[in-house]
Amino acid sequence: MTDIPPEIETLIERMSKLPGLGPRSARRAVLHLIKKRGQLLVPLADAMADVGRTARECVSCGNIGTSDLCAICSSEKRATGEICVVEDVADLWAMERSGVFKGRYHVLGGTLSALDAVGPEDLGIPRLLVRLEEENVTEVILALGATIDGQTTAHYIADQLGEMNVTSLAQGVPVGGELDYLDDGTISAALKARKAL
Amino acid sequence: MTDIPPEIETLIERMSKLPGLGPRSARRAVLHLIKKRGQLLVPLADAMADVGRTARECVSCGNIGTSDLCAICSSEKRATGEICVVEDVADLWAMERSGVFKGRYHVLGGTLSALDAVGPEDLGIPRLLVRLEEENVTEVILALGATIDGQTTAHYIADQLGEMNVTSLAQGVPVGGELDYLDDGTISAALKARKAL
Ligand SMILES: [Zn+2]
Ligand SMILES: [Zn+2]
Repeated sequence: MTDIPPEIETLIERMSKLPGLGPRSARRAVLHLIKKRGQLLVPLADAMADVGRTARECVSCGNIGTSDLCAICSSEKRATGEICVVEDVADLWAMERSGVFKGRYHVLGGTLSALDAVGPEDLGIPRLLVRLEEENVTEVILALGATIDGQTTAHYIADQLGEMNVTSLAQGVPVGGELDYLDDGTISAALKARKAL
Repeated sequence: MTDIPPEIETLIERMSKLPGLGPRSARRAVLHLIKKRGQLLVPLADAMADVGRTARECVSCGNIGTSDLCAICSSEKRATGEICVVEDVADLWAMERSGVFKGRYHVLGGTLSALDAVGPEDLGIPRLLVRLEEENVTEVILALGATIDGQTTAHYIADQLGEMNVTSLAQGVPVGGELDYLDDGTISAALKARKAL
């Protein structure tokens, strides 16, 4: 673009790499930030720099924290013997928001995929096996997506765990979900898992 | 949220104030940035800090630049006698991308709106009148949105400009536009502005 300051062009170009932002929404976001630079731009730049300095992956579970062991792995309260296996940190955060799970996590960072050449080592599955012994794990809960890759990964992990008590999140109708809006797979899973009242 | 480092919660909260990002997409964007902190997060924080330090509004036209006068107002080449009036800097950038306009701009920063109590002074219209004399302006091109507020603003400005040669962007079918996808207003405007072939 002509006559746009290079600092601003650089910022637009870097913003446009965020998921969900294309060039047009990056331009709009940058203009918005510039208009409110005292309230928004400078605090956001500071927060990013802070996170850039402090964030790191937990060496045990793969969660994101600010020290070698994340807050969950560091807390003795979370040593319930349950490990919940999730695909990524966004899923871990979703579980934490629900507030129902009191144990620890194992973040795979993806799913097995022949197409993308993602194997068990890439997902930290050997590390999960080590944790089973070290942390006196009594149950592994697989909270993986109801996709083909998610379910392939779940079955692979279940196979590796041998005699371990392995469970998986129930599939069914979401709370508040109207049948009319659900896809066939969800309805069929919910029907198969039906319970007596 | 429980057990999420406060630095990361702060970043998510600030990111979620960007236009087009809600809490969920802010969380996803932050995780993406953390995963690629060397490539994305740190460079983005730097670019934001740069822009926060350098960006300012042009005292003459309202464009965003890095000194009191923007690059366009500083360039003698752009003193063509034409001033293009736009609602905001995003529109100025869009005009610049098209590369067809060689003159200078006047950025209103909005449109007249009785509802939002936006008056002529808020839009720098008095400053536009001053520029007409100082810059030997021969034509004012109104490039305002085809909305009610945009057109009200255009008529108000045209009234203020008295004998000045005032024009406005043509309305019609967008290049590549199929009639089937256009709203009635566009079709009716294009029909009224029809030309002999
Ligand atoms: Zn951890
Ligand atoms: Zn200017």
